[in-house]
Amino acid sequence: MPAHAAATRALRRKLGARVVLTDDPALTEASYDSAKIPFRPEAVVRVTEEAQVGVVLVLANRHGVPVTTRGRGTTLTGAATPVRGGWVLDLLGLNAIAVDDEAGMAHVGAGAKVGDLQRAVEARGWFYPPDPSSKEYCTIGGNIACNAGGMHGGKYGVTRDFVVALRGFLPTGEFVQWGTATKKFSAGFNLRDLWIGSEGMLGVVTGAVLKLIPRPAERWTLLTSFKDETAALQAALALFRSRVQPAICEFLDRESVLCAERATGRVVFPGQSGRPVILLELAGSKAELREQRAAVLAWAGDYATAHRAARTRDEAEQLWAVRRKCSGAMFELGDAKLNEDIVVPMKNYVQFARFLARLKRESGLHIPTFGHLADGNLHVNIMYHKAVPAECRTAERTVQTLMETVVALGGAISGEHGIGLAKTPFLRLQHSPAQVRAMQAVKRALDPRGVLNPGKMFERFEVWKHPRLEVKLPWDHK
Amino acid sequence: MPAHAAATRALRRKLGARVVLTDDPALTEASYDSAKIPFRPEAVVRVTEEAQVGVVLVLANRHGVPVTTRGRGTTLTGAATPVRGGWVLDLLGLNAIAVDDEAGMAHVGAGAKVGDLQRAVEARGWFYPPDPSSKEYCTIGGNIACNAGGMHGGKYGVTRDFVVALRGFLPTGEFVQWGTATKKFSAGFNLRDLWIGSEGMLGVVTGAVLKLIPRPAERWTLLTSFKDETAALQAALALFRSRVQPAICEFLDRESVLCAERATGRVVFPGQSGRPVILLELAGSKAELREQRAAVLAWAGDYATAHRAARTRDEAEQLWAVRRKCSGAMFELGDAKLNEDIVVPMKNYVQFARFLARLKRESGLHIPTFGHLADGNLHVNIMYHKAVPAECRTAERTVQTLMETVVALGGAISGEHGIGLAKTPFLRLQHSPAQVRAMQAVKRALDPRGVLNPGKMFERFEVWKHPRLEVKLPWDHK
Repeated sequence: MPAHAAATRALRRKLGARVVLTDDPALTEASYDSAKIPFRPEAVVRVTEEAQVGVVLVLANRHGVPVTTRGRGTTLTGAATPVRGGWVLDLLGLNAIAVDDEAGMAHVGAGAKVGDLQRAVEARGWFYPPDPSSKEYCTIGGNIACNAGGMHGGKYGVTRDFVVALRGFLPTGEFVQWGTATKKFSAGFNLRDLWIGSEGMLGVVTGAVLKLIPRPAERWTLLTSFKDETAALQAALALFRSRVQPAICEFLDRESVLCAERATGRVVFPGQSGRPVILLELAGSKAELREQRAAVLAWAGDYATAHRAARTRDEAEQLWAVRRKCSGAMFELGDAKLNEDIVVPMKNYVQFARFLARLKRESGLHIPTFGHLADGNLHVNIMYHKAVPAECRTAERTVQTLMETVVALGGAISGEHGIGLAKTPFLRLQHSPAQVRAMQAVKRALDPRGVLNPGKMFERFEVWKHPRLEVKLPWDHK
Repeated sequence: MPAHAAATRALRRKLGARVVLTDDPALTEASYDSAKIPFRPEAVVRVTEEAQVGVVLVLANRHGVPVTTRGRGTTLTGAATPVRGGWVLDLLGLNAIAVDDEAGMAHVGAGAKVGDLQRAVEARGWFYPPDPSSKEYCTIGGNIACNAGGMHGGKYGVTRDFVVALRGFLPTGEFVQWGTATKKFSAGFNLRDLWIGSEGMLGVVTGAVLKLIPRPAERWTLLTSFKDETAALQAALALFRSRVQPAICEFLDRESVLCAERATGRVVFPGQSGRPVILLELAGSKAELREQRAAVLAWAGDYATAHRAARTRDEAEQLWAVRRKCSGAMFELGDAKLNEDIVVPMKNYVQFARFLARLKRESGLHIPTFGHLADGNLHVNIMYHKAVPAECRTAERTVQTLMETVVALGGAISGEHGIGLAKTPFLRLQHSPAQVRAMQAVKRALDPRGVLNPGKMFERFEVWKHPRLEVKLPWDHK
């Protein structure tokens, strides 16, 4: 007997059986996200109108039913996993996109896909920079929930930097709007930004007004390789010191490059197999690019062991294959991955590179690492074999050492994924007891019955102790 | 007998008589800010070390003493007025500025002046865009407290858009840090941004890490005039639709231009006295400016009745005199001013211009208006004579009508000044009861004894009923 059967019946009477689903396929699908650790909910509410969210939350508060909000479920942290059962609130139906050309803003439903938004605005001469790698699947609501970033973060900023206003519901079910469709707003406490990155725990976002910027007229791509990781990171710092701001500055370490080379069947730079690379993209007007290109080519001549510029969009796509193909091939190094998205302050890049080399050596694990050098956000992938107990224990110890070091270097345990379930063991490395108490006080103030996404953020959950579903999701790397 | 004499003695024992001042000149100076409505505190704590802030707050909580945090006191809203007495926490002593050239960030004490920060970073090729008109006096802490904006908001953003991390104290006295010195951070609830714009009510900011952008190599200034206000606003919309993003786009209505012409003793465009103007500044590389200048000159030819570009920095300064001189001269139109900083969404610019013309006509008051067209933030100055009761009543009715209309048009009652005391009568026009309750719940959660800046934001205070000090502050407009 489900714990909240009566409440679910009441909800179904209010919203109808086409909105409130309890059939097995629907419950199974909603039981896991991209963390692939399933917990079965009692119902899935496929929202078709914004007001239904309020109905769900009022009933959830009355009956004490956990509610987990969900977009497409691409999160790697388990933030959309209904770990306490209850109801899953599926917002994919709220997917409207409207562009305001005068204001340079988009009015977007929480369920709209990021890729759809980007295409809609680019067709009109605008640009929405945040671009998680799952952008063809993930939703704006999910991006707001974890303050998603992507490759453009260093120059243009992350989701938070583009949110102008939010609408949605308090955990207790009241409709609210934070901010207006204006670039300035200084009237009352900033609960808009408190919602950003709150991972579905402080409210339900149903729609957003997003800032757009003029679409860069041109892009130019350059692939560069370096003697070793330290040389690559030092070169990047030299570039930034010269005040050049590449739109994208992706780093792949030696192991990631070897993965990409295996996956593409092609050596990146002939005779230099497995050298770490930096993939740069400049964006701007024709005139801007002309200026910056010269500076970047001079820099590459000074620091890189090899470089190759794309002369056409096709050639650029070929250079990008290195970056796109590296993730999938990592599963040849192990059948399990602890996927981290730590952030390191630039001044400690070199120190971190040395630490990472030592960590690989001492753990004996493959830890291919790549990421966004213009903002310090590195994807550290700890690969291991789940059937080998010693490797599991080493992986667990290794992620702990990684997180302790990142915080000691003044960095962040997550730059764009959030805490969810996966990073809960490390939250208190990042935040002092006073900081955690303040967050929990805010949570209790807004969600006194604790209905929204319980079990996340503050409670320790060790993902490595939970078996993962063997399921292929559309956005999984090939 | 002061209400908190024993607590003040205890504080003085802990921090010393050079930090905790109770002499008459110190108390008088701290009794008012730029709103000029004085309330006498019992002590002023001139902080010399960050840790003193924690000591003040712990004692304040123990004894129930109101604490009002203060930078230079340039706020026009009364947000730094110690309306309930108690202690004023003066952070001007925390004024360190350090620039990190690799990361493109500045580490700044709350008491550092915005103008000092700008000069420090510009000397090194960086740019910090937020620029309230009081920037040579106001502090970074105060700018964070009210999410200050300025003229660069449309293209570059406001204070919030440049805050990377904050440090300071919870209302209960615990030291906390929100965010790291990295452009990405997605670990835990976003209390950093909750602090931004919280007007000293949810914590005390002692320091900030601020994002910098590369300093534009060149600037170019163009002054344009238009037939009437509606024509000027329609022209601005046409410019924005063409995807040109001026760094500055300042509008002055007819009355503001007449004030400026009186103050400078010069007609802006010969034969066109009193025509509304738009003052544009482009910023970027030489190549960018070349492209944009051509587009802007073509636009001016199409829409403006006259235009004049500055060929030198001196000529640009002359054009800027129009904008800088208009405020001071307004006091010839009345000896009292209700200074508003409302925001109007672009799509309703023309409707707002018509409303404002009607408001001037029907009230019979002078309401010179100027502001930042690229973000809709307009400074509406309702002028009246405080010795004329009928004008006072009309001014009060007029500001109410203004605020109701702004909200009805989808705008904000404050874009960059905040609520403080002055906007409290209008908070509930902007925010629904549920929104206000949520803000108050957050306040109680973080400040259970209500020691930080009590009497602000949520309690109605009618500034027009309070006599203002006749005092000249250094940043008052001449």
